[in-house]
Amino acid sequence: MSVATTLKAQLQGSVEDDPDVLAAYASDQTALATHGTPVALVRAKHADDVVATLRFAYRHQIPVVTRGAGTGLAGSANAVDGAIVLSVAALNRILTIDTVSRLAVVEPGVINGALAAAVKRQGLYYAPDPASREISTIGGNIATNAGGACCLKYGVTGDHVLALKAVLPDGTQIVTGSKSRKDVAGLDLKRLLVGSEGTLAVIVEATLRLRSLPPPPATLVAFFPTLDTAARAIVAMENAADLSLLEMMDRVTIQAVEALTALGLDTHAAAMVLVQSDAANAAAVIQSCEAIANQHAATEVYWTADPDEGRQFLTARSAALPALEKMGTTLLDDVAVPKSRLVDMFARCEAAASRHQVVIGTFGHAGDGNLHPTIVFDPADQQSRHRAYAAFDEIVKAAVEFGGSISGEHGVGNLKLGYLSHMIGDPERELMRRIKTCFDPTGILNPGKAY
Amino acid sequence: MSVATTLKAQLQGSVEDDPDVLAAYASDQTALATHGTPVALVRAKHADDVVATLRFAYRHQIPVVTRGAGTGLAGSANAVDGAIVLSVAALNRILTIDTVSRLAVVEPGVINGALAAAVKRQGLYYAPDPASREISTIGGNIATNAGGACCLKYGVTGDHVLALKAVLPDGTQIVTGSKSRKDVAGLDLKRLLVGSEGTLAVIVEATLRLRSLPPPPATLVAFFPTLDTAARAIVAMENAADLSLLEMMDRVTIQAVEALTALGLDTHAAAMVLVQSDAANAAAVIQSCEAIANQHAATEVYWTADPDEGRQFLTARSAALPALEKMGTTLLDDVAVPKSRLVDMFARCEAAASRHQVVIGTFGHAGDGNLHPTIVFDPADQQSRHRAYAAFDEIVKAAVEFGGSISGEHGVGNLKLGYLSHMIGDPERELMRRIKTCFDPTGILNPGKAY
Repeated sequence: MSVATTLKAQLQGSVEDDPDVLAAYASDQTALATHGTPVALVRAKHADDVVATLRFAYRHQIPVVTRGAGTGLAGSANAVDGAIVLSVAALNRILTIDTVSRLAVVEPGVINGALAAAVKRQGLYYAPDPASREISTIGGNIATNAGGACCLKYGVTGDHVLALKAVLPDGTQIVTGSKSRKDVAGLDLKRLLVGSEGTLAVIVEATLRLRSLPPPPATLVAFFPTLDTAARAIVAMENAADLSLLEMMDRVTIQAVEALTALGLDTHAAAMVLVQSDAANAAAVIQSCEAIANQHAATEVYWTADPDEGRQFLTARSAALPALEKMGTTLLDDVAVPKSRLVDMFARCEAAASRHQVVIGTFGHAGDGNLHPTIVFDPADQQSRHRAYAAFDEIVKAAVEFGGSISGEHGVGNLKLGYLSHMIGDPERELMRRIKTCFDPTGILNPGKAY
Repeated sequence: MSVATTLKAQLQGSVEDDPDVLAAYASDQTALATHGTPVALVRAKHADDVVATLRFAYRHQIPVVTRGAGTGLAGSANAVDGAIVLSVAALNRILTIDTVSRLAVVEPGVINGALAAAVKRQGLYYAPDPASREISTIGGNIATNAGGACCLKYGVTGDHVLALKAVLPDGTQIVTGSKSRKDVAGLDLKRLLVGSEGTLAVIVEATLRLRSLPPPPATLVAFFPTLDTAARAIVAMENAADLSLLEMMDRVTIQAVEALTALGLDTHAAAMVLVQSDAANAAAVIQSCEAIANQHAATEVYWTADPDEGRQFLTARSAALPALEKMGTTLLDDVAVPKSRLVDMFARCEAAASRHQVVIGTFGHAGDGNLHPTIVFDPADQQSRHRAYAAFDEIVKAAVEFGGSISGEHGVGNLKLGYLSHMIGDPERELMRRIKTCFDPTGILNPGKAY
């Protein structure tokens, strides 16, 4: 009997082995990451399905690749040959919203934006805001420790996880953390699961921290003649003001966005900076940023205290990736550097583009030093692919050279596994491998990913 | 040759085995926690001393108990028989303060308050503020994932750790994290070391996140006729306002503080609540809290926008422990519960005091649900000690029953090791033990602590 047939009898959810379906679930949204051919897709309908699937896989030593919505950008959810793809997307119930303790208990398949909307109706705020928030799941957000623009003020996904329920490969359920915001009992298994990309256990429930809804934001957009003036302005703004968003786009990205949207952006500028504050005195904060922008030679500055107009300002930033995608296939990178090296990082991206004759648009969460240099290439052209890889390689290594990270928020997956050794030494990787063995002694969970 | 004599030849720092000195370094500040008799005290002067001490101990299989200033409150730094006590207090250099990337690189023996003062001179803010901050070390703060009042707004110590250098028992140095605020490369070994109470590795360097100095705070103090009205006011205040401190004291504590300080506190009140905001509109925020306090039947409310006067308000809270210590020996507990169970937790403390005929003053970081029920007892009286233990037992178990934690910020040490099984299941503890083995295969680092 096939894996699918055998498993089907044990589950409430569906099991499929139609090759077309399997192909659709064999990879996430990462360009240039490899993937294998799975043998079955399980769509779990209940946490018990996760337990049964893992027990079966453990007994038969079949690899298991867990996925939420498949919006990953590092190949973390890409199947390996012979794997069971375990989708938790249908485990999508919001179990509790507690307005007094300000926490939510959710299943892993809940869409981030659905949770944010549900808690907003009760006057609360789920802060983590990856760009994919309307389509990505909480489980995937936790598995990659997803970021977003809000991290500048509110931190990453992991900072909002109070407790997790997860299943080990042999079917054992574990619980880690508590409903308390402060908890130092034992080793922090919860933080170890956050960002572990499905290699240690399968999350079946998460208790998440909620906050009060912030006041309506004020927003500023400024254009700068050089990357250096922009970077200096960014540092000055963040030091001076309580900001909730600090994004930046380079000239290539500005021009691509303008070509797509005709928003009237200054296409001669070297950098466009977007700033938002949700402080109680947001308008005053943003006016102080206006002054800082002007002190740093900004060529154009606009600001608004109207939230709707502010959202309009942000459409330029949201259009960055779609605009670059119009120009060809994109390889979206994700590196993070200390803020003192922001200009150096932009310069290296420009140099890589010029050296390897590829288009690179760089944009991202500049306030956190987290950039997304996006390489445009033609996948049908072997030369173009080769040049894209070479530029990618240079950029990732530069981030490490500057004391930063090979990934700020997308994860390592299989896309960047080869770069880990540039950043993390042998003893530390050996520790990671040993820790994996504690959870997953036979290595069936998402092999070949993350570390 | 003795351990001390052999080690001395290998180190820049001192090694002592005088019994009086060893006795002084055999325990931290925890009442009722046991400790053993060490064989040597190493005062490391350089990270190399840590490496040499660990190599020696590993070769000879001698337990090593690392300590900073010894201000711990869970016995985490208490020696075991035959151990080398490894003090890192003299590794106290601030290596870097980077005002652009807003980070500091420090050795583990740096006093928290010294770092806060040094960065303040450069216009920056190191937020974590355990009550011991003027005497406790950054290394100890990290090892226990120390909290403080600021956690309400700024998070715990672990939220401020960007990178760590640490030494494994066999002398191998590891580095984890980066200088970037966002970093998702590999498993999060850094977060695993945070709060691990010296059981995995010895931290020799920490890279810490700094923030902008917040505006001067406004402060409010309010007295409530019942614990219930106080707890409801606390929830309403936190939901409505951007607060940086939200502390509470019960009647027993108020009366003890008044007896010590004669500040003129309302000793008939059931609860005193202290609130601070460092928002740009702090005065307005605190005025909204005044309205909330009045809506919740507060008997007296005072507020000030003057930071010095605000500091005066806070002296009542700082005096809580010293005031209770005036009444006898204190067993300071540290539990955390979800905010919806705050009143229940206070009620259980009262019930435990009454059932076991002990004095219990309860105060703490109410905004985070983190309380310090403090049991006053006579250590010379066997009956009194027995009753203190019984009350302590009831309180810790209640926190778990309410979905909280046996420790919010002090750690497990050996004081609460017996309680861990009430909160953490066998599979999870087994994972913790296996993870320890990855770092410390022969179990020489701080045996019998934390998990």
